[in-house]
Amino acid sequence: MSSTAHAPLTSCALHAHHGGQLGVYEHQAASTHCTMRFSVFTPPGEGPFPTVFWLSGLTCTEDNFTTKAGAYKRAAALGLMIVAPDTSPRGPDVPDDPEQAYDFGLGAGFYVDATQEPWSAHYQMQSYITQDLLNIVLASFACDPKRIGIMGHSMGGHGALTLGLKNPALYKSLSAFAPIVAPSQVPWGQKALGGYLGDDRAQWAAYDACALITAAGDRASFPPILIDQGCADDFLTEQLKPELFEDACRGAQQDLTLRMHDGYDHSYFFIASFIDDHLDHHAAILKAL
Amino acid sequence: MSSTAHAPLTSCALHAHHGGQLGVYEHQAASTHCTMRFSVFTPPGEGPFPTVFWLSGLTCTEDNFTTKAGAYKRAAALGLMIVAPDTSPRGPDVPDDPEQAYDFGLGAGFYVDATQEPWSAHYQMQSYITQDLLNIVLASFACDPKRIGIMGHSMGGHGALTLGLKNPALYKSLSAFAPIVAPSQVPWGQKALGGYLGDDRAQWAAYDACALITAAGDRASFPPILIDQGCADDFLTEQLKPELFEDACRGAQQDLTLRMHDGYDHSYFFIASFIDDHLDHHAAILKAL
Repeated sequence: MSSTAHAPLTSCALHAHHGGQLGVYEHQAASTHCTMRFSVFTPPGEGPFPTVFWLSGLTCTEDNFTTKAGAYKRAAALGLMIVAPDTSPRGPDVPDDPEQAYDFGLGAGFYVDATQEPWSAHYQMQSYITQDLLNIVLASFACDPKRIGIMGHSMGGHGALTLGLKNPALYKSLSAFAPIVAPSQVPWGQKALGGYLGDDRAQWAAYDACALITAAGDRASFPPILIDQGCADDFLTEQLKPELFEDACRGAQQDLTLRMHDGYDHSYFFIASFIDDHLDHHAAILKAL
Repeated sequence: MSSTAHAPLTSCALHAHHGGQLGVYEHQAASTHCTMRFSVFTPPGEGPFPTVFWLSGLTCTEDNFTTKAGAYKRAAALGLMIVAPDTSPRGPDVPDDPEQAYDFGLGAGFYVDATQEPWSAHYQMQSYITQDLLNIVLASFACDPKRIGIMGHSMGGHGALTLGLKNPALYKSLSAFAPIVAPSQVPWGQKALGGYLGDDRAQWAAYDACALITAAGDRASFPPILIDQGCADDFLTEQLKPELFEDACRGAQQDLTLRMHDGYDHSYFFIASFIDDHLDHHAAILKAL
């Protein structure tokens, strides 16, 4: 890891882990105008490594995936680098939901570029993930720019799908756990998109995975998508609605594997139970490039 | 899981996990005179299951191992049940270190039965682990009483070694990560044993793994012990001193595998990196019984 003139990087923690190295870093991000934090797992061996970005869900920071997902043993075996950023801007200047709700503001950036005051000054998470974070990872770590994938959970599954579908030349592999697939149609998404983007629903479509797939007509050519969903997930029927994405993919002839798991909930215990399959999915695609 | 007349058990959380089930439970413990919390991972399949108890280190609760160790995938594959309790009594009546230090009082029970006021009323963690917790697990879960092992980290490595060495008919397999092996000789242990047991060092020997091994003379017959230790552990030279345990085992002709790992620290990232080897160690012994 080295710093560059573009992007000074502060190392907050370094741990040997599964034969590789896990680090937590901070940097000043141009898009969000604040200090952002992320973790990087570097597998053993020589890079450049195929790299998967993980986007977390509501209330999370970079720490949840890093400590709870149990991803790094398989990542080490596969030679995958994994980058896990925070879920929103942070800091004394960053506004939060007036009611400090868990589903808007801090911890709930929804991976959009906000256009509405007071959010637009800092809540630029789409640009942060696809530009600032990407660039500092490329500049500072042994990441192979041609072999990058993206995955996430819940709000972060929404982020992974939307950013992946909009940037197919950048993200070559896609997967999600219990994603919000149709934010325009569910309460979490309607609150977030309405707040960050305003009432004009035409602006929401760029941040709606179902809308993005449907816009591809009947000949979508995105990489095959893997989604795992727990059947005992408390948010399944009101907020997640994977059947909407299944329908959209069917209409667009998009390759989707949607696995429904009896008994599994929305927690990191669910993620940890199936994360190895996602890493295998990404590695199979990225290593074949 | 069923409750019994002896020990009402409250389920706080249940998660499907790696094909098995992870639960967090509370019960009123006779030894500690307070509500105690622990987690149980039940592997898929039919019991009774060989079972390993995990004892955590300073500042931890039952949650640290449960969420961070990444142990349950291998446990599921091996058919091992894993029980992870809290590290001290808790509650409004339970006294803490007057200075709220991290290394005494709450979160720092040291797996001893305290004899000194005001600690003796609640700090009875040896009895809690070997009696209350054991009995409620046997009564409520599909635990095979003839195939039980014990392992732990740091203070919990001390707990696993001392309780294991004192109760060989109960605990048939032993291992530890970065354990405190000679509490009588290091600051953490001297503070804890002095506080809980008083100044008579003769009382400390029953809670000192090196002393217990040495007391076996030159013909120790404990099960083979596996210890992993990180070389970049900040506590290695002052508090842990694995070489003292290595010397004691050599003198007692006790089978010990002590593995020193370059670059690894004291964190759960270290534990997660090698936990599968410990589960394999326990399974090999317990499943051969």
